[in-house]
Amino acid sequence: MLPFEISEYKERLGKTKQTMEAAGIEVLLITDPANMNYLSGYDAWSFYVHQMLVVMTDEPQPVWIGRKQDANGAKLTTWLDAHDIIPYPDDYVQSPIKHPMDFVADILKEMGQAKRHIGVEMDSYYFTAKCFERLQAALPNSVFKDATLLVNRVRLVKSDAEIMYMKRASKLAEKAMAAAIEAINDGVRECEVAASIYQAQISGTEEFGGDYPSIVPLMPSGNKTCTPHLTWTDSRYTNGDLVIVELAGCYKRYHCPMARTAVIGHPAPQVKEVADIVIEGLNVTLEAIQPGMTCEEVEQVWKRYLSDKKLEKDSRLGYSMGLNYPPDWGEHTASLRQGDLTVLEPNMTFHLIPGIWLDDFGVEISESFRVTEKGYEVLADFPRQLFVKPVLKAM
Amino acid sequence: MLPFEISEYKERLGKTKQTMEAAGIEVLLITDPANMNYLSGYDAWSFYVHQMLVVMTDEPQPVWIGRKQDANGAKLTTWLDAHDIIPYPDDYVQSPIKHPMDFVADILKEMGQAKRHIGVEMDSYYFTAKCFERLQAALPNSVFKDATLLVNRVRLVKSDAEIMYMKRASKLAEKAMAAAIEAINDGVRECEVAASIYQAQISGTEEFGGDYPSIVPLMPSGNKTCTPHLTWTDSRYTNGDLVIVELAGCYKRYHCPMARTAVIGHPAPQVKEVADIVIEGLNVTLEAIQPGMTCEEVEQVWKRYLSDKKLEKDSRLGYSMGLNYPPDWGEHTASLRQGDLTVLEPNMTFHLIPGIWLDDFGVEISESFRVTEKGYEVLADFPRQLFVKPVLKAM
Repeated sequence: MLPFEISEYKERLGKTKQTMEAAGIEVLLITDPANMNYLSGYDAWSFYVHQMLVVMTDEPQPVWIGRKQDANGAKLTTWLDAHDIIPYPDDYVQSPIKHPMDFVADILKEMGQAKRHIGVEMDSYYFTAKCFERLQAALPNSVFKDATLLVNRVRLVKSDAEIMYMKRASKLAEKAMAAAIEAINDGVRECEVAASIYQAQISGTEEFGGDYPSIVPLMPSGNKTCTPHLTWTDSRYTNGDLVIVELAGCYKRYHCPMARTAVIGHPAPQVKEVADIVIEGLNVTLEAIQPGMTCEEVEQVWKRYLSDKKLEKDSRLGYSMGLNYPPDWGEHTASLRQGDLTVLEPNMTFHLIPGIWLDDFGVEISESFRVTEKGYEVLADFPRQLFVKPVLKAM
Repeated sequence: MLPFEISEYKERLGKTKQTMEAAGIEVLLITDPANMNYLSGYDAWSFYVHQMLVVMTDEPQPVWIGRKQDANGAKLTTWLDAHDIIPYPDDYVQSPIKHPMDFVADILKEMGQAKRHIGVEMDSYYFTAKCFERLQAALPNSVFKDATLLVNRVRLVKSDAEIMYMKRASKLAEKAMAAAIEAINDGVRECEVAASIYQAQISGTEEFGGDYPSIVPLMPSGNKTCTPHLTWTDSRYTNGDLVIVELAGCYKRYHCPMARTAVIGHPAPQVKEVADIVIEGLNVTLEAIQPGMTCEEVEQVWKRYLSDKKLEKDSRLGYSMGLNYPPDWGEHTASLRQGDLTVLEPNMTFHLIPGIWLDDFGVEISESFRVTEKGYEVLADFPRQLFVKPVLKAM
């Protein structure tokens, strides 16, 4: 079931260990499900209970620690040896008394790893304040270090195999967006458009199927387009409605996000104007992308373009993305914004989203791209336009 | 857009404040998105960045603090006054320098709430170790208290309006499970069945549409049924495959989970045997449920039933559920297991899932139920059986 060669996992592990050594970390407790997957292959919706992958600089293989009923899942989906998959009993699950981190501390002691410099992903969703408190209490002789994003940074530059998966994801994104644009019509309920998106995203193509994206379709409509992260309702679209659709295709946990905006009936002049600026700004920014630029410099291209328009955008222009689990497909490392000095390298992948949210409406038209040896490659092939859906006359 | 009357939100807030006072907490920082929704109505997929609802015993309304581009979403989906919606600038988002909790600390200081007993949800997914570290550093005169599950416990007993939403969710669960059972066939790809489930879950009924469930369809097949939390692949089912489907219907963030198991072709005798035990045990346990029992006593009924069978189940039998966001529809409060002395009250709602996972296969057949004045009410109406799908002959 492994989506990559074992040699690729071992290469990722090697890079992680190098980074750990440079940071003075001997033991790394990985709780970010994307990082767990990246290094071990582990793939299950079990991150709603505490679990982790332990990487030790003096051990060849990582150790998986998780709930007993998920241990068979770890055996099925990872390249780890069975004896490196360590289950905790069910009475540790959501218990007011026992905490899975007590179990983890016991295992670290057994393995002779309790007096080490231990890295923890301090700002990872699934590493709660309680996790850290319990670990500190149970391991008084350990020195804890903040290893937030340590593995995420290793993930920044994708392998060719990862890029191949993201290109498959881009086919799913195209299919899902086409289904959305087709379905958005006067009188149709928002939930029906969402269902059409899912159908396309998940059933996939004849060659391959789709995985669940880490974010559900974001579909604000009408005046709700003034904010990007609303989902759908069961209201019916009406003539004049503006509809933003932000979605991703996902293949084996690799994403290709994309946003488009549609209008039912005639677009208001100010909507058309903002859409034209977003599209032109997107094109101008993409054309400038080259390896060796910093993330900040990419955003400056957009800012310069926007400087003589009467619009402002005070949110970041984009972010690194790829492999992930809910609630985010972003990698939380590089952002296209002021102050981010990350240097673009071939096979870094970003979602470039010059979304504009005004007080009464918004427009999003975005692209996911890969940095190439000489410039950039947009992953999906989908018209960059404001989609105008005619109002169908009643029969 | 509010799904409940403002009076219901105020009642929930009142109960929360009473609980805070009993626990000696003056300020409660709520980061669990379900708790934020429960008290304010806030509904957006924005929990991938830090955000919170602040409840103060000496202030009539909670304060929402979140990312600037989500503030319009808070204005649209909550009952809060606009001046109680406080946005932080975008350079706090996933920044190596600024952290949203620094901003939160500044706001608490401005509001004169920095020298208080502050409750934090220590083991909530979205309250990371870093969040707590930054708050403690920025608020040296505050006393922090563990308020994990404080609001979750207020949520345990549902209002009639909440039950009505869960009954709508049950109709969506029935529709989605019917679509799954219909689609599972020899030669069909797992992703196509997943797509059919989504189509049914989300498009909903003629009367109402479906929301996204907090967990994606869990669909282990074949020998992968030995573990519950695998999703789907693009492999094709073949004759003899066993397929577990665990899914939920979701209406306005309220869930009705349900699991069923199907087999393509003839079930192996041991599969049939386990399924019969699971179904009979489920029926026996449900029939025993009454208000006034403890959660532990419910599980004892199941354990007694199982005692003369040659099966064991060492994971919990069920858990309280209802309103939630990814990654879980469970509420993390009451569990049907040994040691849980929560007393069943009318309008508590549980997912009763006597899943059996052996080394080479597993069976799940479950029901969501409400505790009534005199007993129990199963939410969905779907046959409790092992579904046998005939192998279709090639044309």
